[in-house]
Amino acid sequence: MNGQMMDFPLTLQHLLERAGKYFGSQEIVSRLPDQSLVRSNYAALYRRSRALSAALLRAGLQRGDRVGVLMWNHAAHLEVYFGVPCAGGVLHTLNFRLHPDELAYIVNHARDRFLIVDDALLPALEAIRSKVNLERLWVVPFSGQPLPQGCESYEEWIAPGDAGFDYPALDENAAAGMCYTSGTTGKPKGVLYSHRAVALHSLAMCLPDYMAFRERDRVLQVSSMFHANGWGFPYAAVMTGAALVFPGPHVLGEPLLDLLSQEKITVANGVPTVWITALHALEQNPERWPLQAGLRVLSAGSAVPASLIERARRSGIHIMQGWGMTETTPLATFSFLRPDMQQWPGEQQLEMQSRQGRPVPFVELRAVSSAGEIPWDGRTLGELQVRGPWVAASYFEFPEAQDRWTADGWFRTGDVVSIADNGFIRIADRAKDLIKSGGEWISSVDLENALMGHPAVREAAVVGVPHPKWAERPLAVVVLRDGVAPCETELREFLTSRFARWQLPDAMVFVPEIPKTSVGKFLKARLREQYSGWKWGDA
Amino acid sequence: MNGQMMDFPLTLQHLLERAGKYFGSQEIVSRLPDQSLVRSNYAALYRRSRALSAALLRAGLQRGDRVGVLMWNHAAHLEVYFGVPCAGGVLHTLNFRLHPDELAYIVNHARDRFLIVDDALLPALEAIRSKVNLERLWVVPFSGQPLPQGCESYEEWIAPGDAGFDYPALDENAAAGMCYTSGTTGKPKGVLYSHRAVALHSLAMCLPDYMAFRERDRVLQVSSMFHANGWGFPYAAVMTGAALVFPGPHVLGEPLLDLLSQEKITVANGVPTVWITALHALEQNPERWPLQAGLRVLSAGSAVPASLIERARRSGIHIMQGWGMTETTPLATFSFLRPDMQQWPGEQQLEMQSRQGRPVPFVELRAVSSAGEIPWDGRTLGELQVRGPWVAASYFEFPEAQDRWTADGWFRTGDVVSIADNGFIRIADRAKDLIKSGGEWISSVDLENALMGHPAVREAAVVGVPHPKWAERPLAVVVLRDGVAPCETELREFLTSRFARWQLPDAMVFVPEIPKTSVGKFLKARLREQYSGWKWGDA
Repeated sequence: MNGQMMDFPLTLQHLLERAGKYFGSQEIVSRLPDQSLVRSNYAALYRRSRALSAALLRAGLQRGDRVGVLMWNHAAHLEVYFGVPCAGGVLHTLNFRLHPDELAYIVNHARDRFLIVDDALLPALEAIRSKVNLERLWVVPFSGQPLPQGCESYEEWIAPGDAGFDYPALDENAAAGMCYTSGTTGKPKGVLYSHRAVALHSLAMCLPDYMAFRERDRVLQVSSMFHANGWGFPYAAVMTGAALVFPGPHVLGEPLLDLLSQEKITVANGVPTVWITALHALEQNPERWPLQAGLRVLSAGSAVPASLIERARRSGIHIMQGWGMTETTPLATFSFLRPDMQQWPGEQQLEMQSRQGRPVPFVELRAVSSAGEIPWDGRTLGELQVRGPWVAASYFEFPEAQDRWTADGWFRTGDVVSIADNGFIRIADRAKDLIKSGGEWISSVDLENALMGHPAVREAAVVGVPHPKWAERPLAVVVLRDGVAPCETELREFLTSRFARWQLPDAMVFVPEIPKTSVGKFLKARLREQYSGWKWGDA
Repeated sequence: MNGQMMDFPLTLQHLLERAGKYFGSQEIVSRLPDQSLVRSNYAALYRRSRALSAALLRAGLQRGDRVGVLMWNHAAHLEVYFGVPCAGGVLHTLNFRLHPDELAYIVNHARDRFLIVDDALLPALEAIRSKVNLERLWVVPFSGQPLPQGCESYEEWIAPGDAGFDYPALDENAAAGMCYTSGTTGKPKGVLYSHRAVALHSLAMCLPDYMAFRERDRVLQVSSMFHANGWGFPYAAVMTGAALVFPGPHVLGEPLLDLLSQEKITVANGVPTVWITALHALEQNPERWPLQAGLRVLSAGSAVPASLIERARRSGIHIMQGWGMTETTPLATFSFLRPDMQQWPGEQQLEMQSRQGRPVPFVELRAVSSAGEIPWDGRTLGELQVRGPWVAASYFEFPEAQDRWTADGWFRTGDVVSIADNGFIRIADRAKDLIKSGGEWISSVDLENALMGHPAVREAAVVGVPHPKWAERPLAVVVLRDGVAPCETELREFLTSRFARWQLPDAMVFVPEIPKTSVGKFLKARLREQYSGWKWGDA
């Protein structure tokens, strides 16, 4: 017997209507490519998103048609977040930092029919234009410069407005968005988000123990909006009516701190490297950027070093850690102190905060080794598997990757974890980044986080490098802080108190920069390649 | 095209698993009928709820079978909240304060197959037993007294435990619970909640601008758990892992304050009369019950007078107002101050807080008069209509009430509202309680709330009484505070500054008590009947 409740679909149309009806005067602030600040509000978001929906239908958009988007973070990007799915289309956010061949592959694999692009990103479009087949191209004209041949103005296109526009009726399982994994191995693979998934994810991430968005918050969207729904922040902010601030291309160091301070930001996000850079500038000049009391930041994308959490705390920034993937919309776990941990000593608290925490409601986890589900002993490692209503069930037209799902329907994350007796997970490593040394596993992430806790170290990546005797041994690639001299012995000494001798890196190299992926993660594949011919001193 | 997300159902089975896995040591405290306090935890809830599921399946429970429950608020009631629906049954909470004929009608209409009853409530069972047909009866044995003929011990029944129990696979639309409206007119009507509705309701009500449950909260469940899922608090608390405290039958005045104080309660609920009584005791003895800073209370069920909000604030209790019905699971709207209202003068804030606010996400509202949807002008009145995923689509086997839904699928609430220009609704009255005086409408609720703001008044109800000239005129029925002498002239004077002359009550009667429904609302139908022969002085 079923309940007798209304069959009311969870769609983004509802969230857009809600925003227009109840939050019209709430602010939306964008920093444009030319650094100017533009102030808008939810009433404009409502009107312009619906105008976009209407324009798409006039252009012949059919249900499920993919609309590619090459954009920085700004108000127009938020419009397409709503305007495309509310018209029944699929918002396909594109990572403009990818190699043109990869980007063209993704546009073609997704069969994007239309494309919307910032004029500041026209070079990324030009680099793929001869390789893709797009029916129409609209350019968001920030600079006022003439449009390239074959491109139309986004502003002129949506100028007729939303008068007479009616939402098409949508099922909550209809596709709303699409994002390809940055995939360091193999072809990029597309994840197809449903309206339902985004709606439920918005509810869960706003819970008070997690991001706790309120109407009185001012949210800074630092993470790229082309990556996993911008970590869900834009949709969640619109659901709660929080003010939204977008940094455009200016997310590093001082420009970021300017926005945090001037726009009275209360919540933000971003990969650890963004916040390492910001803290570096803030520590040089602690009085220059007064921050809101209780400023909270979700950091994720790669493990957040305990040292970063502690440094940030001293500067008045509460860095919180979550874990997720493109395939999980993305938020799946979140780390916060349990009531009984509130009384713990600071160091013990920090140890808990540097874990990835426990699953949010309606997400389920397990970790599996060859011996089955691992015990909650804080030591045994197993592959993290996940399921839930906002977890991908398959990739878009990619049946050969179906082995990423178990026979009983869990997604194999490729992350290797241990689980403490209280259920807090710790990501030990990506399965492929684990260092296999003589039958034992060494976590590259643990070594990196420890190294980044040393005051001389700015960034550190550890990779397994082939070794004639041990199969692989760890090599540390270290970026030192300005003016610090290489200090391998001191760093090794620093590590010995925390790791067994056999876990220590056998060598360190000091470099000016670590290569990163387009979303700011260490590009370990490149480091492994670069050091694949490494000669071990005492091999 | 659909998204490619997992088909993961939103069920209470997930919430119970989550509770057992991650919140095992969190506390559950119950005050039993004999006043003793029993301390338990989520690990026990998990084990015992699953033991109950297993016992129900052994007893032959089929999908959708209704299990009636006659219980006070305590840990065993929470067990049945999970154990029944997680086994595929439907939890039918029964209001033991109803007249036996009405209760028997409800048990029979719902076709309850089994029944679980507190031994302290056996008299309510005995009063209907000859009129109903129940296959088996289990008694929760608090007193240790011998069980009546034909009853079995709940404790012995679930003693075999949950070993080997597997959840039956459930669709999220499966029925989880059932509650009959207290219906002051016509037959009681059953609302059938789905797992999905309860899950979504839990997510929405926990958002930070609403009840904001956190794992560190300690929640006191004052509202009867037989009424509209206990306002959703028990399910939401289990989802977030908050501690739960149950008062059993002891919810008035000092025993309530004892629990608030001793159990360090941070969140509670209850109809206005419960909190009026508690404040009365607290104000007599302000040092006796130290309360947690920031204690927040959801009050609803009838309009919350501004004077109560203000009085509570002075005692350190933050009373928040929501609006909902049995048919809406129940939370549909919530009142909190918008960011721009934080700077308003206190009186203006209070005016906003005494409204019922705006809808929570995924609930949609409109108000309709004979002229169509009413404008947001704060004056025009219209019937509130509502839709959303946790709003009833029909009553259980009651097709003749289908006119409670509009042709386009909205639920007619029977409440009459105005809507301010910011979207905040104000319940003017139940449609049937509006006083129709000479072609104009007078809100009985507005008069009552104003009267209850006078220091001499403890409670006040206003009803329309037949009048030869004006069709109806308002009569105020007033309970004065202890030791205060009747003061009609002074009260009329007090009202004249807020109401037009024609809106004022033409007469006042002073009584020791106002009759109330089983859930604490003024029983206006009885007052109207009682005063139907009223002789107006100057008619």
